[in-house]
Amino acid sequence: MEDKYSDDQIGRARVKDTPELEAYYKELEALGAGALWTVANDIEPWEPKSNSVPMLWKYEDLRELVLKSSELVTPEQAGRRVVYLVNDKRKDVSAAVGWLYTGIQVTRPSESTSAHRHRASALRFIMEGNKGYTVVDGNKIMLEVNDFVITPNSTWHEHGVEEDGATCIWQDGLDIPLVNALEANDYAVYDGKQPLDYPLNYSPMTYNCAGLIPADTTTWTKPYSPLFKFSWSKVYPALLEAQKVTEVNPFDGIFMKYSNPLTGGHVMQTMGAAMQLLPAGFKGKAHKHTGSFVYQCAKGKGFSIINGKRFDWKERDIFCIPSWAWHEHHNLSDTEDACLFQFNDLPVIESLGLYQSRELEENNGHQIIK
Amino acid sequence: MEDKYSDDQIGRARVKDTPELEAYYKELEALGAGALWTVANDIEPWEPKSNSVPMLWKYEDLRELVLKSSELVTPEQAGRRVVYLVNDKRKDVSAAVGWLYTGIQVTRPSESTSAHRHRASALRFIMEGNKGYTVVDGNKIMLEVNDFVITPNSTWHEHGVEEDGATCIWQDGLDIPLVNALEANDYAVYDGKQPLDYPLNYSPMTYNCAGLIPADTTTWTKPYSPLFKFSWSKVYPALLEAQKVTEVNPFDGIFMKYSNPLTGGHVMQTMGAAMQLLPAGFKGKAHKHTGSFVYQCAKGKGFSIINGKRFDWKERDIFCIPSWAWHEHHNLSDTEDACLFQFNDLPVIESLGLYQSRELEENNGHQIIK
Amino acid sequence: MEDKYSDDQIGRARVKDTPELEAYYKELEALGAGALWTVANDIEPWEPKSNSVPMLWKYEDLRELVLKSSELVTPEQAGRRVVYLVNDKRKDVSAAVGWLYTGIQVTRPSESTSAHRHRASALRFIMEGNKGYTVVDGNKIMLEVNDFVITPNSTWHEHGVEEDGATCIWQDGLDIPLVNALEANDYAVYDGKQPLDYPLNYSPMTYNCAGLIPADTTTWTKPYSPLFKFSWSKVYPALLEAQKVTEVNPFDGIFMKYSNPLTGGHVMQTMGAAMQLLPAGFKGKAHKHTGSFVYQCAKGKGFSIINGKRFDWKERDIFCIPSWAWHEHHNLSDTEDACLFQFNDLPVIESLGLYQSRELEENNGHQIIK
Amino acid sequence: MEDKYSDDQIGRARVKDTPELEAYYKELEALGAGALWTVANDIEPWEPKSNSVPMLWKYEDLRELVLKSSELVTPEQAGRRVVYLVNDKRKDVSAAVGWLYTGIQVTRPSESTSAHRHRASALRFIMEGNKGYTVVDGNKIMLEVNDFVITPNSTWHEHGVEEDGATCIWQDGLDIPLVNALEANDYAVYDGKQPLDYPLNYSPMTYNCAGLIPADTTTWTKPYSPLFKFSWSKVYPALLEAQKVTEVNPFDGIFMKYSNPLTGGHVMQTMGAAMQLLPAGFKGKAHKHTGSFVYQCAKGKGFSIINGKRFDWKERDIFCIPSWAWHEHHNLSDTEDACLFQFNDLPVIESLGLYQSRELEENNGHQIIK
Repeated sequence: MEDKYSDDQIGRARVKDTPELEAYYKELEALGAGALWTVANDIEPWEPKSNSVPMLWKYEDLRELVLKSSELVTPEQAGRRVVYLVNDKRKDVSAAVGWLYTGIQVTRPSESTSAHRHRASALRFIMEGNKGYTVVDGNKIMLEVNDFVITPNSTWHEHGVEEDGATCIWQDGLDIPLVNALEANDYAVYDGKQPLDYPLNYSPMTYNCAGLIPADTTTWTKPYSPLFKFSWSKVYPALLEAQKVTEVNPFDGIFMKYSNPLTGGHVMQTMGAAMQLLPAGFKGKAHKHTGSFVYQCAKGKGFSIINGKRFDWKERDIFCIPSWAWHEHHNLSDTEDACLFQFNDLPVIESLGLYQSRELEENNGHQIIK
Repeated sequence: MEDKYSDDQIGRARVKDTPELEAYYKELEALGAGALWTVANDIEPWEPKSNSVPMLWKYEDLRELVLKSSELVTPEQAGRRVVYLVNDKRKDVSAAVGWLYTGIQVTRPSESTSAHRHRASALRFIMEGNKGYTVVDGNKIMLEVNDFVITPNSTWHEHGVEEDGATCIWQDGLDIPLVNALEANDYAVYDGKQPLDYPLNYSPMTYNCAGLIPADTTTWTKPYSPLFKFSWSKVYPALLEAQKVTEVNPFDGIFMKYSNPLTGGHVMQTMGAAMQLLPAGFKGKAHKHTGSFVYQCAKGKGFSIINGKRFDWKERDIFCIPSWAWHEHHNLSDTEDACLFQFNDLPVIESLGLYQSRELEENNGHQIIK
Repeated sequence: MEDKYSDDQIGRARVKDTPELEAYYKELEALGAGALWTVANDIEPWEPKSNSVPMLWKYEDLRELVLKSSELVTPEQAGRRVVYLVNDKRKDVSAAVGWLYTGIQVTRPSESTSAHRHRASALRFIMEGNKGYTVVDGNKIMLEVNDFVITPNSTWHEHGVEEDGATCIWQDGLDIPLVNALEANDYAVYDGKQPLDYPLNYSPMTYNCAGLIPADTTTWTKPYSPLFKFSWSKVYPALLEAQKVTEVNPFDGIFMKYSNPLTGGHVMQTMGAAMQLLPAGFKGKAHKHTGSFVYQCAKGKGFSIINGKRFDWKERDIFCIPSWAWHEHHNLSDTEDACLFQFNDLPVIESLGLYQSRELEENNGHQIIK
Repeated sequence: MEDKYSDDQIGRARVKDTPELEAYYKELEALGAGALWTVANDIEPWEPKSNSVPMLWKYEDLRELVLKSSELVTPEQAGRRVVYLVNDKRKDVSAAVGWLYTGIQVTRPSESTSAHRHRASALRFIMEGNKGYTVVDGNKIMLEVNDFVITPNSTWHEHGVEEDGATCIWQDGLDIPLVNALEANDYAVYDGKQPLDYPLNYSPMTYNCAGLIPADTTTWTKPYSPLFKFSWSKVYPALLEAQKVTEVNPFDGIFMKYSNPLTGGHVMQTMGAAMQLLPAGFKGKAHKHTGSFVYQCAKGKGFSIINGKRFDWKERDIFCIPSWAWHEHHNLSDTEDACLFQFNDLPVIESLGLYQSRELEENNGHQIIK
């Protein structure tokens, strides 16, 4: 703790307990009240504080267990057959970091879930498999590895894998802990089978060219992206194009955000997502900012130093960065790029005016590993 | 619990424990993981659930204790001399309801606090006294009873009472629990005395007429209202005017929102506020909606029924309504109107797409008191 | 013309006619075409150019003629009994300046017009009389001298004076020339009598306090202000308040804009309006900017210098300032303030990205009268 | 004229001239005034009225003349070597339709223009050639046939063709007549050579994937699209994709709008653009709406019926549709699709609240050719 952050100064609570005060506190307590100065320094920290710790989940550890779930329970019994990843310090709210939930879902060929919806928003990032699909509000969408797909707030949705497909594994991301904390979640089960109101892949085939949208923009009034799938087959080439002309961000590499093509804003109101390409040999500098982040390595291998601790990752590994944690990313290859997918709560942090960041100045911007 | 909300149906987790599964759960736990179906029904409730209970804080109980604080501690020792009101179920986060903090602050003539700022936003509603003032980012503003004043996110602020004033008591409202939960709060103490950069009452005297604003609107770029004080001497007559021409809202009476005159939106990004005039004899109907609310009775007397329990209030009493709690308001006088000030987290709930409401249909829209 | 604005330089058309070129031009003309370089310098001026000239209409000249119209024609014959003011250089489009129309309308006690609507927007500024009213989309609103009232795009509207009132004279402002030029105007006559759907003065009594609006903001979806009347009885005191704390704008005095309380934007999509208080002894500096302006002196006396020509005005006089004309305002009284009402096409100029301004640097910022 | 549009009814001006009135009109005229009822019916039409006529410019007629210009004048002499297309009824403002200018520009290998800028906005649609380029605010962008490129309001811009390219012909579209009419145009010549501040093709390579944008969106603050080029090589495949899943609009076929990926709005503040794919055998129905449109056939052949007159077009032909003109489009091929590029003033019409449309009901929605 730096000296400037001492609580022994004007403007901070510095009241010493006395018998008289203790009696006073009891009187207050009896009325559902308390003296602010007994808690003020705790609830007014000098800097943002996270309740989460950095964590890494290695896919090679988890994969077998995830697959095993498909032997142990059926989607019908389980609702969804998912292994969720939980932060050591956030078990009470089933969160991977901050108020974000993440899990790994497995679906076998011919399996499908029933449709449901909830106030919480969801997203997926495809890890393995073939001919998986999701149906969002009547729009069936085929999924491939490294595709990013959204099922926003209160949309009916269900997932499955075609009979002639291969077992699919994907990462789910949800804001369930946040929406529960805000005391606003709900849940409904679709009565029967969700009808397919749109042609297959309607959404991505309609919004498939940058800067070209349906001429009649009055038809889409939802507060989230009408583009539900962001295909790796388009995103990765786009990153390579951008790399040729864009300055590399010293913290985040070639840093592109998934966005709502009708607003340029985040894809959903509560969760954002981005893809970072770390060029071959990239050694990112450290900074910290508010907001919680869940990462999955989509390509390559490297490591991230988070609050002075090194976490090595390779394709499919998942890790998290808590709010206000120092972090830097390194690509371990000198010849291949690495790609990190991330999702986050930045739409919340930004819309509420809570974003701030700081760059590490010491040691040429690199953390010293503890 | 209604039958439609049974967890024994398709779409909900219905897995029974077996030794095999228990072994599996242990394996998962060792890796920082878990099986979603063991927690899914808990974290995906059928309807919004609040962790708070309805509570009423009677001013006649609290007033003496609040004044006593001014004998026990100085503002300098305490930072701010405040008795805070805490929900029986939210003591861990010092919240009055949901993620909202509220307290009662007392300042004696000639006293003033030092200036500080924080990422959390604050508001005040004046309860007693004379010649109190607040200074917000260099703008000193005089306060009178029932005035509503804001000190938004990261503005430097301090308060005091002039030498020839009378002891002031006001209610503070802050989003500290929310901003802490979102891991984004910070705090700074102003080094020395905040300079008065503007003439006295600059903000309310500049924005003092509906539909008339400074012609150069490019100068205000902040995400909150440039109007910092909303005077009771203007608000109450406005409510009476509106009452003459406006249909009475069956739930909320004459229901007006404090708003940013440059956007028509909430006064701050994280907390909103409103004033409700309940006409003489008003017997409000019951509804429920998401969002947490702290009320103070500014005028008159009446009662509110919250989740089937009656809470009687009169001028200066404070009470809270948790998210998704049934509530209805009644004016106990047949000749005088009653006015309820409230502040809330609606800016959060709305900007994140989490608002929903339901009207009580049974019993002609009135709750049966338990 | 400054040398830097010579057309004899690279980047401007400098083609000299030859017989060959003249033959070529004829060939083009036959096909509905032309050579750009023959018109380029004309259609691409170095600086904004206005087709209007500054003009002043003295009320003492016009008043008799305006009143006389009420002897010559009935409202029923005339549609509306209005004397319109026309710029010497804009007679072809019946505009007072730029694409703005203005006129002076007279209505006698007991008279009323039939209701109609048009795509063009209208506004009024009340000059004389008592118990005049307007009805806008079913909302009847009483008018007093110096009140400003709007009848936006496609609202049904009609006007009249109560039986026990006094002859009313007001200034009309419309964007008819603009909407005609944009080939989008239309017109409809209300079949029968417009019903009064709202209590008398519903709009101004509902939105009558700065920063206080109906809590349910989802009900107003129109692209213009829900506040239809801006009362002088509120505006003038507000200007005096603002004067106490606001720095005087060297060009425009105490300069306040009428605004939509739900957006902070202009009151309508095509026309804005403002009120300027010139403090006693005010000697404004000169600047010029794009946008066309029609002024009426609401109080006091003074003069404006427009493009080097002095125009003296007093209460009720009307004058115009064309786009990009140098202008400065002077209050002739050293003891009384002067107030200038103005309406303009700034919403058009601003929303299309066409605003620019320049301050006069020579002669201490004051024009030399020609 | 339908009977309902007779001016002989209440609500329209119906004053007959008398000697007394004529004397009165003269008095008014002497004061720069007039009687509204003498012009009211003219300036308040029942329906939108356009001053333009439908026109078609056949490329086979124009091409030779366009190329000939490159023998007659140099870019240096001409500023820009452009043949502009002018509406028979808009010669006074050099407009092709409404307030839109269009021209055909020819540039030979090794030629380039000097850089300039103007308040007016410009766009181009490439018709012929190879290795043409534009430089917009330091960003050089290569152009291919059927590419659409923008040079917005006040950007420095210049064009050229590389030494090893082929003569380029493109259509220019500008809002010069509009910006002149609004008295806001200006012009500046770049002093020297515009530096290339960005890598070649920076803009299209940065924004080249739908729903993927640079993560830091705070850097772009301009009111127009950061994507300057919309490549045919991406647009046409996107239209084919959309065709597979999108319902064909009965008036406009597969109808996609060029849009700003950061807002979903028009590419510039004053001009919009769109591409329509008319499927093989498409026989569009007729409607009319406000807004002026310039079309170029980018592919295929067909005809449009505009206000009852048939205009046959094929690749590269240009035609215009005036505001409120009935129009319908037909593809003459039963096997090939046809593509129509269009640009328009819809951003103006929409932002000012002036859009309206009507569908033809008679004759199964098809016009009878006069």
